Amino acid sequence: MALPEEFHAIAERVNNWGRWGADDEIGTLNLITDEVVRAAVREVRTGRRVPLALPLRQDGVQTGMIPGRIDPLHAMVQINQELFGPGTVACSDDAVTMGLQAGTHWDALTHVSHSGKLYNGRPAQTVTAHGGAEFSGIDKVRHLVSRGVLLDVARARGVDRLAGGHAVTPEDLESAEEFAGTRVRTGDIVLVRTGQVRVLLAGDRHGYGYPSPGLSVRCPEWFHARGVAAVANDTLTFEVFPPEIENLWLPVHALHLVEMGMLQGQNWNLEELSTACGETGRYTFLLSAMPEPFVGATGTPVAPVAIL
Amino acid sequence: MALPEEFHAIAERVNNWGRWGADDEIGTLNLITDEVVRAAVREVRTGRRVPLALPLRQDGVQTGMIPGRIDPLHAMVQINQELFGPGTVACSDDAVTMGLQAGTHWDALTHVSHSGKLYNGRPAQTVTAHGGAEFSGIDKVRHLVSRGVLLDVARARGVDRLAGGHAVTPEDLESAEEFAGTRVRTGDIVLVRTGQVRVLLAGDRHGYGYPSPGLSVRCPEWFHARGVAAVANDTLTFEVFPPEIENLWLPVHALHLVEMGMLQGQNWNLEELSTACGETGRYTFLLSAMPEPFVGATGTPVAPVAIL
Amino acid sequence: MALPEEFHAIAERVNNWGRWGADDEIGTLNLITDEVVRAAVREVRTGRRVPLALPLRQDGVQTGMIPGRIDPLHAMVQINQELFGPGTVACSDDAVTMGLQAGTHWDALTHVSHSGKLYNGRPAQTVTAHGGAEFSGIDKVRHLVSRGVLLDVARARGVDRLAGGHAVTPEDLESAEEFAGTRVRTGDIVLVRTGQVRVLLAGDRHGYGYPSPGLSVRCPEWFHARGVAAVANDTLTFEVFPPEIENLWLPVHALHLVEMGMLQGQNWNLEELSTACGETGRYTFLLSAMPEPFVGATGTPVAPVAIL
Amino acid sequence: MALPEEFHAIAERVNNWGRWGADDEIGTLNLITDEVVRAAVREVRTGRRVPLALPLRQDGVQTGMIPGRIDPLHAMVQINQELFGPGTVACSDDAVTMGLQAGTHWDALTHVSHSGKLYNGRPAQTVTAHGGAEFSGIDKVRHLVSRGVLLDVARARGVDRLAGGHAVTPEDLESAEEFAGTRVRTGDIVLVRTGQVRVLLAGDRHGYGYPSPGLSVRCPEWFHARGVAAVANDTLTFEVFPPEIENLWLPVHALHLVEMGMLQGQNWNLEELSTACGETGRYTFLLSAMPEPFVGATGTPVAPVAIL
Repeated sequence: MALPEEFHAIAERVNNWGRWGADDEIGTLNLITDEVVRAAVREVRTGRRVPLALPLRQDGVQTGMIPGRIDPLHAMVQINQELFGPGTVACSDDAVTMGLQAGTHWDALTHVSHSGKLYNGRPAQTVTAHGGAEFSGIDKVRHLVSRGVLLDVARARGVDRLAGGHAVTPEDLESAEEFAGTRVRTGDIVLVRTGQVRVLLAGDRHGYGYPSPGLSVRCPEWFHARGVAAVANDTLTFEVFPPEIENLWLPVHALHLVEMGMLQGQNWNLEELSTACGETGRYTFLLSAMPEPFVGATGTPVAPVAIL
Repeated sequence: MALPEEFHAIAERVNNWGRWGADDEIGTLNLITDEVVRAAVREVRTGRRVPLALPLRQDGVQTGMIPGRIDPLHAMVQINQELFGPGTVACSDDAVTMGLQAGTHWDALTHVSHSGKLYNGRPAQTVTAHGGAEFSGIDKVRHLVSRGVLLDVARARGVDRLAGGHAVTPEDLESAEEFAGTRVRTGDIVLVRTGQVRVLLAGDRHGYGYPSPGLSVRCPEWFHARGVAAVANDTLTFEVFPPEIENLWLPVHALHLVEMGMLQGQNWNLEELSTACGETGRYTFLLSAMPEPFVGATGTPVAPVAIL
Repeated sequence: MALPEEFHAIAERVNNWGRWGADDEIGTLNLITDEVVRAAVREVRTGRRVPLALPLRQDGVQTGMIPGRIDPLHAMVQINQELFGPGTVACSDDAVTMGLQAGTHWDALTHVSHSGKLYNGRPAQTVTAHGGAEFSGIDKVRHLVSRGVLLDVARARGVDRLAGGHAVTPEDLESAEEFAGTRVRTGDIVLVRTGQVRVLLAGDRHGYGYPSPGLSVRCPEWFHARGVAAVANDTLTFEVFPPEIENLWLPVHALHLVEMGMLQGQNWNLEELSTACGETGRYTFLLSAMPEPFVGATGTPVAPVAIL
Repeated sequence: MALPEEFHAIAERVNNWGRWGADDEIGTLNLITDEVVRAAVREVRTGRRVPLALPLRQDGVQTGMIPGRIDPLHAMVQINQELFGPGTVACSDDAVTMGLQAGTHWDALTHVSHSGKLYNGRPAQTVTAHGGAEFSGIDKVRHLVSRGVLLDVARARGVDRLAGGHAVTPEDLESAEEFAGTRVRTGDIVLVRTGQVRVLLAGDRHGYGYPSPGLSVRCPEWFHARGVAAVANDTLTFEVFPPEIENLWLPVHALHLVEMGMLQGQNWNLEELSTACGETGRYTFLLSAMPEPFVGATGTPVAPVAIL
């Protein structure tokens, strides 16, 4: 079953292959220039820092529905061990096993392929078990700091959370932008709040994943037009689920990661940030959201922090 | 074998137990106030971002000498898998197993205990295999952004790296401060460069670990006096190794983590930062170094970024 | 809350501490002598082999209720990788992370302690994160082959499976013995079939674990009297769950593992064996059920095979 | 670079594709019939059991040279945890991460492919990160018990171990057979002792792996002619290393696993068995060597036991 014509039409309009050279591995992150960062820094007013990651724990986000994507298993390899003899300073060490996409994470550009291709036209087969992604592994992202903009779609619509299955449209984004009193610009990292993570925080993991509000297939063009560097939201699936177009699964993933070369973030907890922005009426801030540099990885846990 | 009197005398002078209340779990991070962060942001001049983490890979930092502390094992659980049927968008997912202290990391306050105690006087037994650290797990650190100061001891002494076994003293720190033309102040995160990571980058893992330059047992008092929030350096052992005082192992760990309640970072790659600071002559910057919020963990990988 | 007097009374009657010397680490496995094995071999009639392990897979036995006990995560580290150059023989390698008690397993004698003690009177504190169990780790079991006897309690009672909460008593065991036309003797490995694993095989993991039929607190004395070397059954909890005596949790574990020094097996699939034995009317066989020699481990996956 | 003509000529002579039907997934294990097992059982004389597995530990066999194949990391998730309240029976649980081919193991038939094919002509692409091997995963082996024959090539030649690089030939096998006073027959599991594991046991992991004695490319035809069901030895590489024919890497793997569909075992410790057989002059026994049923796995740890 091929992807529908509609998908390919959008793909053509947002495609960035070659835009930053044939060797490029980071896509729209190229839009975050030193100048963009200097301007981002000027957004800081109070110095308040708001963390956006969910806790990493065995009893976390996953339900077992996605094969292999396990929540962190934390285990101890040393507990108060007097490694240098009785009465000496004692050490505790721990180890963890986890799916790199299990909690609050960035998808690397290689997290999906379509029609046999990855970002910048590279063959899908360059992702192997032997070292992971040869190109555009998450370790190729050297830094990820820019202006963050919270598009609080839920709050702008006056609800705690959008209904499951609500497709967030460009019109929703623009209403949220207007509500925020700002305008998304080149190099921004856009955080789209649906409120869906409240389902998870209330203890309903299955309900969190499905049905879920999320981005419409129409959003990538909007992000493309605005020159957005990266987008994250507070859902498991990122895009609306079930999908808008029958049998067209994960089109937003394919458009962002493969066509545009734009990182996506999922399972971000935007609740505290929403409250903080709501209090001041300012929805822009400095955002630091560094990937862990797992070599060849197709995703990474991230502990983002907004500096208001 | 008890810890020597000399150790206890220093411990008494730097002890912070109760300073931020009996319930406190984050120690000197309390010194990073909103005001400190606002001032830190003003250090940004160029917008250049310098990453400070080593790549996370199986062929990483560890030699197998520290039991259980394994370099990341990266493995694939999906590769271009058409989860929704033939011709659909295809997904790649990966999983990792690693020691939380294996690469560029922060020690949590619970990483060591001495005399049966952890930071703030809690019993060492509150670290268990069942959930890890009940108190002061790394997840208790909600954010870690402040002014960073590079004390480039190697460069200040005109060498590429300090000799193995060189104990970095408060006098070394003050010379580096003078060289940097700045003064360490309350809430700063201090990065002490020895240049030792060059041994690792040159491919000699064993030589990197031992013998190693590192902090002298006299440094904690200096950090205490200056109100430093956290300290990191570019070595495996953090403190000088072998130790200065025979049979007194890891005294700096015990003073920082247990007595002061101050986070320590190890295996930070400060080479690019040293070059960047050397070019401009400015050794202060905004530093974001968020822990991954592993619940109950005694350490965490971190991908710090300096914003110059 | 101390353990009740009733427990201690049984404990005294079944205690084997010192029976095989103060240094012994394998308990009742000492009862399997060369002579016992020679006799066991004589039980083989048809040469038919029946496997007793459940498949090891991510979608396995566990529900997440037991912290840290995760089903196997299987991941690839090489897939058809031509490690020696294009066109050469290609290799596939995999890695796994799992709880050692997650699937069909043996509990090591150190899997539980009570009143601060392990088998043979050793302190519970000899189990640490640094190397696991200093004594009686599963690697101390060098071999585990003996006569197996299926006590098919369910079949003897004419049911597919015992009801959840049914406590299997010594009288049940004797009825099953009579039904089998054999008598349990010194060095035997006894397999007690409740039929409960049918709940799991039918897809109900939660129902499998609770409520569950299982051994009564009165069984250990029976096994002790008969000189049984090891016991396994087809349940998650091994003993009846919820327990027979209010607030007395896991008494059978404590009696078998700590007091008697007798290995226990759980999650064994006895369905095919039940059918095979039912066909021939013979319930004795040669059983090989080797632990994997994980050093210091408190349990191990096992793939037992009955040779009929 | 294609495989040489010489390889293909042998391949043609030993090929078993279709021999047990197009659907077969276990190859030469089909040769172990009930009758073979009944005869195998008759080999038991003393009842002595000899374990053949190396301990599973972090400080194990691997050197880090084979990417992703890590020795077991053992970690604790519960230590004497009173899960049901203070004073109750306390539990210890552990978890492990390991390469399935790291220690004493069986290669599954899918461990290698050549020319894009697996055993029975299946495409190599049926091994994926999503579930591993679709066909001939190690879980397809339901039982593995048969007569074992120790071909003690080292002892037959009067040496402790064969020299590194010594290719064990069919002539060597026949001399060892004669020395053993037996004849390898259909359904046997053949254990070839080189003595190389003594290098490992003496603490030299690198020397153990390379250079290594091992099977010559001429052996598969001999095993084929005799109807051998499976072969294991006491080396890391199984076949002689470096290889006999320049640039022909792992030909024996390809012939055994792909062409013949015959399991191979590596890193078996045959030292105690050699001594035991040497004492009695009998080199045949009952062998139980059950794989752990990891679903879709291309290998498995195994704890074989010989019953003499």
